[in-house]
Amino acid sequence: MKTFSVKFLPDDKTVQATAGKSVLEAAIVAGIPINSVCGGDGVCGKCRVIVKSGQVEAEPNVFLTRREIQRGMALACRTFIQGDLVIEVPLESRVGGVPQLASEDAVRFGRISERVGEGAVFARNPLCRKEYLELSAPCLDDNISDQERLYRELRQRRDLPIMQMGLAILQKLPDLLRKSDWKATALLGHRGGTTEVMDVEAGNTSQKQLGIALDVGTTTVVAHLVDLQSSETLATQAKYNSQISLGDDVISRIMYSSTDTRRKQLRDLIVNDINDLIAGLMMASKVRLHDVTYIVCAGNTTMVHLLLGLDPANIRRDPYVPCVSLPPAIRAVEIGIKINPRGLLLALPSVSSYVGGDVVADVLVTGMTDSPDLSLLIDMGTNGELVIGNAEWLVCCSASAGPAFEGGGITCGMRATRGAIEHLTLSAGGAIAEVSIVGGGKPLGICGSGLIDAIAELLRNGCIDRRGRFVETACGGKLREAESGEPEIVLFPGDQTALGKDIVLTEADINNFIHSKGAIYMAAECLMAHVDLSFNDLKHVYIAGGFGNYLNIERGVEIGLLPDIERQKFHFVGNGSVQGAKIVLLSRDALAYVQTRIADAMTYFELSSDHKYMNEYSSCLFLPHTNIEKFPSLRNKIGAGGGTPAAAPSAGPRRSATAGSARRK
Amino acid sequence: MKTFSVKFLPDDKTVQATAGKSVLEAAIVAGIPINSVCGGDGVCGKCRVIVKSGQVEAEPNVFLTRREIQRGMALACRTFIQGDLVIEVPLESRVGGVPQLASEDAVRFGRISERVGEGAVFARNPLCRKEYLELSAPCLDDNISDQERLYRELRQRRDLPIMQMGLAILQKLPDLLRKSDWKATALLGHRGGTTEVMDVEAGNTSQKQLGIALDVGTTTVVAHLVDLQSSETLATQAKYNSQISLGDDVISRIMYSSTDTRRKQLRDLIVNDINDLIAGLMMASKVRLHDVTYIVCAGNTTMVHLLLGLDPANIRRDPYVPCVSLPPAIRAVEIGIKINPRGLLLALPSVSSYVGGDVVADVLVTGMTDSPDLSLLIDMGTNGELVIGNAEWLVCCSASAGPAFEGGGITCGMRATRGAIEHLTLSAGGAIAEVSIVGGGKPLGICGSGLIDAIAELLRNGCIDRRGRFVETACGGKLREAESGEPEIVLFPGDQTALGKDIVLTEADINNFIHSKGAIYMAAECLMAHVDLSFNDLKHVYIAGGFGNYLNIERGVEIGLLPDIERQKFHFVGNGSVQGAKIVLLSRDALAYVQTRIADAMTYFELSSDHKYMNEYSSCLFLPHTNIEKFPSLRNKIGAGGGTPAAAPSAGPRRSATAGSARRK
Repeated sequence: MKTFSVKFLPDDKTVQATAGKSVLEAAIVAGIPINSVCGGDGVCGKCRVIVKSGQVEAEPNVFLTRREIQRGMALACRTFIQGDLVIEVPLESRVGGVPQLASEDAVRFGRISERVGEGAVFARNPLCRKEYLELSAPCLDDNISDQERLYRELRQRRDLPIMQMGLAILQKLPDLLRKSDWKATALLGHRGGTTEVMDVEAGNTSQKQLGIALDVGTTTVVAHLVDLQSSETLATQAKYNSQISLGDDVISRIMYSSTDTRRKQLRDLIVNDINDLIAGLMMASKVRLHDVTYIVCAGNTTMVHLLLGLDPANIRRDPYVPCVSLPPAIRAVEIGIKINPRGLLLALPSVSSYVGGDVVADVLVTGMTDSPDLSLLIDMGTNGELVIGNAEWLVCCSASAGPAFEGGGITCGMRATRGAIEHLTLSAGGAIAEVSIVGGGKPLGICGSGLIDAIAELLRNGCIDRRGRFVETACGGKLREAESGEPEIVLFPGDQTALGKDIVLTEADINNFIHSKGAIYMAAECLMAHVDLSFNDLKHVYIAGGFGNYLNIERGVEIGLLPDIERQKFHFVGNGSVQGAKIVLLSRDALAYVQTRIADAMTYFELSSDHKYMNEYSSCLFLPHTNIEKFPSLRNKIGAGGGTPAAAPSAGPRRSATAGSARRK
Repeated sequence: MKTFSVKFLPDDKTVQATAGKSVLEAAIVAGIPINSVCGGDGVCGKCRVIVKSGQVEAEPNVFLTRREIQRGMALACRTFIQGDLVIEVPLESRVGGVPQLASEDAVRFGRISERVGEGAVFARNPLCRKEYLELSAPCLDDNISDQERLYRELRQRRDLPIMQMGLAILQKLPDLLRKSDWKATALLGHRGGTTEVMDVEAGNTSQKQLGIALDVGTTTVVAHLVDLQSSETLATQAKYNSQISLGDDVISRIMYSSTDTRRKQLRDLIVNDINDLIAGLMMASKVRLHDVTYIVCAGNTTMVHLLLGLDPANIRRDPYVPCVSLPPAIRAVEIGIKINPRGLLLALPSVSSYVGGDVVADVLVTGMTDSPDLSLLIDMGTNGELVIGNAEWLVCCSASAGPAFEGGGITCGMRATRGAIEHLTLSAGGAIAEVSIVGGGKPLGICGSGLIDAIAELLRNGCIDRRGRFVETACGGKLREAESGEPEIVLFPGDQTALGKDIVLTEADINNFIHSKGAIYMAAECLMAHVDLSFNDLKHVYIAGGFGNYLNIERGVEIGLLPDIERQKFHFVGNGSVQGAKIVLLSRDALAYVQTRIADAMTYFELSSDHKYMNEYSSCLFLPHTNIEKFPSLRNKIGAGGGTPAAAPSAGPRRSATAGSARRK
């Protein structure tokens, strides 16, 4: 096979690639983080690159305008190498920067230190912990084996009926105990009814017990370094999940992971991400990697499968069976994660293929299972998960919202990273009144919370009607026809933006967004109906998920994303995954609780076989809803486009380019 | 460093060795099994080789006669390479052939199949077993994870509260279950309170469940292949422990194992032996290695340490502390043993540094702990172990007997392999009346049981007195002066032997043997005194150990090795190690029994700090004893040398060249 060199700019990285490989494949090898929502299927149009020189074979596509093609622009996944190349990867095509994070301890329902500790909900008793031992030296009257001596001392302190010790530890034990004058620290792992002596160190190292709480999200990966004795968070790090280059959402990644090689590739990407984060934590906190002995991670079912190298294929095939829902605690090194080589990694249990350990963590953090009050949890993301219940019962469901909340499928959409418009207010005619940009400076694009603001404000000002169509007369000359022929409104002209390109919102963008918000609202309504209750019975609504914290509740209600109930009932969870992982990291009682009281107790309600969901979904494709009676507080607020429309715009949930229906996005 | 080639004859194997290395080291590299009782310390004189050509540097020694040195004979461990060499290894210096084995199911106290099974002492429930499962295929109403589906089916059959499954099994599970149409066989391992799904195979493989019972002896290694379902023994194999080249007894091997490299070397030798035996079992039985999933081994504490790669150094240092007495079940592959890669290896628990899993196995096999009758077990070997007790209590002790029972320290001594004189009768004047040779043919040397016969017969015929000294007048001209100047009797002249050399017995040989038998008898007497009982209180005496089965009880009593009680109280255990390992292999109830009712229940009595042992030992250095009243049945039988001697020949237990006193041989 002929090979060519491919140089990527502005990184100035060159790799060798065989003829016929795609530019995207070469970029992955080179470690260039190119955005690819669809995972290389040529259907999202996000992986734009500029071919500066060299010969390529490009498939035709609908995403690039004539002018763009003339400028050398191409889709990396549909452009195949036929010679030595120089490729520029523009800013908007890169997965990069540091994700915007929820405030570190955004647990509004009791800080971690209040939730775990003596006299708190959960005792501080990590599954993996150290114990300093001063053993009596052996003599003729007491010459039991070294192993028994250690066990005996441990058993004098606690009830540990079944003990285990691996060969590697036994092999070093005699020398270590004698050289350390019989003073040593045992690293204990409590699993099932068994206590494993995972390691033994000379002297007293019990002051150094560190763990990592990990949120393995489809989009972002967040790691907190935690002192297991003080519960203190010593450092935090976050980055985008590098698997994004192989697919933006779980379904495209499952589709990509069809071979052993590809599953290994996906696993290597996330493992490298985690190792990068850990290296960052070590830098920031100046602790030794050796002292990190325990990781608890929360992620959706697919992310956990990919992390553990398990085949996720059956997650998306009827009847949606995961390989595992209660993953075993493994040695982190088994999957290549670099902490203490004896250290454990535990993934929180999941409920089903579509309700994962991340949602279980959210529920733990809210404390909704400790209360008789009825609560609803909404985790908003590409996949929306909803949980309703209280201390007695829990029912959950999952709905595919599509990528709009993460900026996907939106012309100028982007994730909530530097340069994203996170909030805005419009005045009459659609002119910007106030704007807030992540990290300050000129805007680069618009993220989920900004989009909600924009659409709510356009609706308030009458620039769009309740079907999401532009009302030309109200748009004050900001409306124009896009190259595609559809109408679009210019929010920021090019001279005010970071890339010099206009930031616009098209009618298709608004329609995509309406489908996303409609999927979440409809799921909530069906879930309420399923348990025979109404929104007014709710005492609390918890908002979790990527952009949850930045959501403006009032505007969320105005566009029909959130139910129209008293605003003070809404609470933000923050990053529930990492907070939940942290609680479990500190307390194995919390692990038992998560398993028995949350994961095992939760009933999964299958939306895709629910008639109401299928039949009434289209009534949600309005702002806020075809039936305004469902939003009583808004009746007098809605602008010019009001009134009940004659016909629903489409029947049944939308099928996005990358995915299927309802749950099987 | 200069290297030379060393060729070994008659094997015709050549290896490269650096200048200054010993011929013994080169032989070990070449895999030539040279006898070395002392482990290369130059004190046993057993590693004789003939330098056929080439330059060596040899240290002077007392073991070779002038004539032998002139013939090119040298000690391999004291002869250092200075040029290209051709070395001949004579037959008497080789560790070779197949050890003589106790009859396969020499359990006289109930065959294995009677002892394990439905309604027997132990239920047939191996720790490691297979279970065939027909799972229901998942559907939308029942879409629990693949792992849970497997667990659920297993739990419907048995009470298995805590289940585990490793990542490797999870990774293959989804594909395997679907391709096998949800029919699969789980390989289960029951450890502590936890059940591990060790492997899952497609279809029904539950008919193929094999295990290996292993006796890892200091001298011999014996392996039995067992069908775990029928309890049937499918094949047996035995060979000498190749570690013999690095030391004949446990103490010299512990001394040798002073570095990581040497410990690895020792481990590799025994692991290779075990793999050789397993290969032999596979050949003989035509089964697949894959179906062997479980090994139970019994060995003394040092052998188990060396097998597991654990440092045995503290076993021989006061206060004699082993690293482990209850070794964990490990994957056999962890130490390089080749069975099913998921298969387990379990070593039977030991009581102390000097009472190992081999003795625990003996006790299990005798059934002495099931009975109210008082029993004494004597395991005779280089190290003698004695256990007294019944269902209520157990006391054990250990005494160093020295290598005489294995033919060590005896001029023409050898192990009980082909060519060994195992039994003989003498007529007046010391002439051979009857003789039995292992394997038939001409004799090569004399093994332990033959030695007992020879000494008992010499005593009967008055050729030696009760101190073991030759009575010249009774020896009919067979007595002569050896090159060393001491008297020796010629049992077989050279023209009747395999090597053409006279087979003789020297006064030193007899003295060495008397020290060995005295150590065992004295240990038994002290043990009785310690529990305040006498030999007449015994209901049973069980004889175990290498040469135990070939012992003539009457002669054993006559020379004062065994106590003078009714002969029908004596029983032979056979190879208790392999039989005990087999019972545990078939029943995890037996494992629990061994641990709680035998190993944990046994009190260790330290002979080396017992005054009686130290003070009265010398009275045992007679045939049978200085106090003939202790052997009432013999009073009228003893020959010419009778009468109570005036003085004890030496005070305190003998120190052998390779070892210390009493217990710390």
